[in-house]
Amino acid sequence: MSEVTTKAEAARKAAVRLAQASGTQRDAALEMMAQRLIERTPQILAANEEDMNAAREDGTAAPLLDRLMLTEERIADIAEALRTLAKQPDPLGEVVEGHRLYNGIELTRVRVPLGVVAMIYEARPNVTADCAGLCIKTGNACILRGGSMAVKSNLTISNALSDALGEVGLPSDGIQSIEDTSHDATDELMSLHGLVDVLIPRGGAGLINYCVENAKVPVIETGVGNCHVYVHEAADPDWVVPIIVNAKTQRPGVCNAIEGVLIDASVADDLLPDVLKALAAKDVRIHADEQALRLAKEAGVEAEAATEKDWGTEYLDLEISIKCVDGLDEAIEHINTYGTGHSECIISSDAQAIKRFTDEVDAAAVYSNASTRFTDGGEFGLGAEIGISTQKLHARGPMGLDALTSTKFVLAGEGQIRE
Amino acid sequence: MSEVTTKAEAARKAAVRLAQASGTQRDAALEMMAQRLIERTPQILAANEEDMNAAREDGTAAPLLDRLMLTEERIADIAEALRTLAKQPDPLGEVVEGHRLYNGIELTRVRVPLGVVAMIYEARPNVTADCAGLCIKTGNACILRGGSMAVKSNLTISNALSDALGEVGLPSDGIQSIEDTSHDATDELMSLHGLVDVLIPRGGAGLINYCVENAKVPVIETGVGNCHVYVHEAADPDWVVPIIVNAKTQRPGVCNAIEGVLIDASVADDLLPDVLKALAAKDVRIHADEQALRLAKEAGVEAEAATEKDWGTEYLDLEISIKCVDGLDEAIEHINTYGTGHSECIISSDAQAIKRFTDEVDAAAVYSNASTRFTDGGEFGLGAEIGISTQKLHARGPMGLDALTSTKFVLAGEGQIRE
Repeated sequence: MSEVTTKAEAARKAAVRLAQASGTQRDAALEMMAQRLIERTPQILAANEEDMNAAREDGTAAPLLDRLMLTEERIADIAEALRTLAKQPDPLGEVVEGHRLYNGIELTRVRVPLGVVAMIYEARPNVTADCAGLCIKTGNACILRGGSMAVKSNLTISNALSDALGEVGLPSDGIQSIEDTSHDATDELMSLHGLVDVLIPRGGAGLINYCVENAKVPVIETGVGNCHVYVHEAADPDWVVPIIVNAKTQRPGVCNAIEGVLIDASVADDLLPDVLKALAAKDVRIHADEQALRLAKEAGVEAEAATEKDWGTEYLDLEISIKCVDGLDEAIEHINTYGTGHSECIISSDAQAIKRFTDEVDAAAVYSNASTRFTDGGEFGLGAEIGISTQKLHARGPMGLDALTSTKFVLAGEGQIRE
Repeated sequence: MSEVTTKAEAARKAAVRLAQASGTQRDAALEMMAQRLIERTPQILAANEEDMNAAREDGTAAPLLDRLMLTEERIADIAEALRTLAKQPDPLGEVVEGHRLYNGIELTRVRVPLGVVAMIYEARPNVTADCAGLCIKTGNACILRGGSMAVKSNLTISNALSDALGEVGLPSDGIQSIEDTSHDATDELMSLHGLVDVLIPRGGAGLINYCVENAKVPVIETGVGNCHVYVHEAADPDWVVPIIVNAKTQRPGVCNAIEGVLIDASVADDLLPDVLKALAAKDVRIHADEQALRLAKEAGVEAEAATEKDWGTEYLDLEISIKCVDGLDEAIEHINTYGTGHSECIISSDAQAIKRFTDEVDAAAVYSNASTRFTDGGEFGLGAEIGISTQKLHARGPMGLDALTSTKFVLAGEGQIRE
C-alpha cells in the first residue's frame, strides 16, 4: 500500500481512540507536545538547516527563506502556542440541543470530532505544529502534507509531536506526516473519500483552487481575499484615508488586506487626492481607472491605467486598484463580481446605504467604517483560529475550534418502535 | 452558452434578489406556487401522461411507474406541502451570535441564504416542488435537475412555480429546471464552482457517489443507509423482536431501515430463533453467518449463508444480514467498518455498554433501545426536512431548513483601524 493510504488508515484507527479521549488527556498531550518540541530543538534546527541549505541551493527568494527558517526562539513560540491551546475550553461534548420526543425518546445532539482532518500547506514549518495542535485539541486525527521545501523540518517536528501523543497514552498514529510531496501523493490524499473527513488547504489561491478542482473529499476553502473598501458619497472624510491606508498597508501580504478601492465618482475629486498621496507615501503601486488616473496626475502621484485583470487580482503586496463608481449599485455589483467573498467595507454615514451594502454584499465579513484587517479569529474573540473560510458551507469567515467538529444525534429509548 | 451555464448565471442573479426578499414575500411566493400548481393540474397531468407513456414503452417496472405517476390528489398533496412550509418560521435574519469587540466594533453573525442550491434527483416529480419550496423558503435560488424519465412533468411543474415567483414580485429566474438530462449537462452543473454554492443529490448510492467523485462544487451527501441493530448480551428480551422487525420491515425501502442484525454469540441461541421466525413471517430473506444459519435450520427458517458482500450491502428491500459477534468491541468494529454513518442501534440494559456504543459508533444518529426508523426531520421535531446527511461537514443527520443557510459576520465601526 502507498505511504498516503497506509498513513490515512492508521489515522482513521487512531481517530476512533482520540474521539474517546477526555479533554484532560488531550490537553496533557498538547503540553507534552510543547515540551518535546523544546527538548528536540537541536534536532529540529539541524533538520531545518538541511531544508534551508537545499532551498538556498535552489535559489529560493529571501522572503520565502525567512518563512522556512526556524530559530530557537521561533520553536519556543510554536511550543507556547500549543500550551495556550491546551488552556482553551474543550469544544467536545457540548450538548448543542436536546429535547424529549413525543414518544418519550430522549434526543440530544452532541459535539464530536470530525474524525480525520487532512491539511495541505506550503512552506512554513510552524504550520505543522499549529495544525496538529488544533486537531488534537478537537479530538481529530490529522494527516499533514507540508511543502516539499520544508519536508525535513516538518518530519522532525511531527515525529516529536506524534511521540508526545504516545507518551500520554494516546495513539501516536493520530498525527501523520506525508513524506512524499509529489503531485501524485497529494492527489491520492485528496481522493481518500471515507478515510479523510475534511481537507483544509492553507496557502495561496493556486493551492486552494487545485484542491477544489480535484478533491473527492469535502474541502474547506480558506483565505483567498480580494477585498475592497468602498467610499460612499456620504463618507465621513476623516475616516477615509486612515481606513484605506490601514487596510492596504498595515500587513499587505495577508488575506484580509484590501486589493481595491471603489469610490463614488461624485466625491472622488474631493476625497481621492489625499488617498492617492497617502498610498504613494507608503510606496503603494496604484492601478487607477480614468478619473482616478487624472486625479493622480493632478496630485503628482504616480499611477498606471488599471485593466480588467486588475479588478480580479489579489496582489498580496503594496499594490492597489482604484475605480470610481456611479454609486452603491455599481459598487455592490463590482464587489459581488470580482470579490472572493472574504471581507468588504463601506465608508458611509448613511444608515440606509450601510444597510444595503451589508445586506447585498456577499462576503464572510461585511464592515461599515472599519478596516478589513480585523477579520481574524483572535480579533473576533473566537480563540484559536484554524483559518478563514470563504465558502458558505460548514463554516464562513474566521473559523474557531468548532469548525473542526461535527455533531451526533444520540437517542435513548425504552423499546419505542415507529407506528 | 450552454443551457446549464445560462440557467446557473440567471439563478445567481436571482439569488441576490431572493436573499433580500422579506419572509412575508417568500411565504407569499410559496402560497402562490401552491395555487398555480392546483390551477395547472390539467397541464401537469397531461405532461405526466406523456412521461408515463414513454416510460411504459421503455418497459419500466411497476414500482418506478408508480413513483413517476401524478394524480389530482398527489398534486393537491404537493401544493399542501408548500402551504405548510409557508407557515413555518423564517430561518433567515436570525442573529446567531453578537458582541462588542474590545475596540468598540459591534459584531453580529446573521443567518443568510447559501445562494444557489443545485439538486439532482431521480424519478419522482414531487421532489421538484419540494426542493423548490425549501429553497424559496430559505431565500435561495435553485437549479433542479430531475430524472430524464420525468422531464416533461418536472418542466411543467417548475414553470408553474417559477411563474408564481414572478407574480409575487420575486425573480422568476430563482427556480431553474434543467431540460438537458445528459451526463455531460450534469457534469457541467457539478463543475460550476462560483455559480453553485452547494449540490444536494437526492437518490441512491450510485447517484450520491457519482456526485462525490465528480463535483467541483461543495456536496452534501444524503441518505445512504447501511444501518444495524446490535443485540447486546444484556438486551431486554422483550424489545429485541419488536425493534428488529420494526426497523427492517415497517418501510424497508427507506434509508433509516436496517440492513443488518448483530447479536452477541452468547445470547444468540436464546434470542435469535424468535427473531428469525418473526422476520421469516414478514417474508424477509435472511443472509446468516454460521451460527445464525445453524439456528435458522433448527428453527425451520429458510436462510442462506452470508458473504462478505452482504455486510456492505444496503438491500433497501425485505432482506437482511445476521451476524453473531463476540461482544461490544466486535459489534462497534463491524458497524464502523461496514456502516454508512446513518443510524445505528444497540439493544441493551447495561448503561456502560450503551455509553460505549453511543460514544464509539461513528454515525449521524446512535440509538439505544429504539427503532432506527425514527431518524427523520419530522420525528426529530425539525420541521421541514431537506434530507438526511451522512457526512460530517455542515450538517449531519436529518437536515432542517437551517441546513440551507449560511451566516455572515456584520461589523459596524466608527473609523477603527488595526494597530
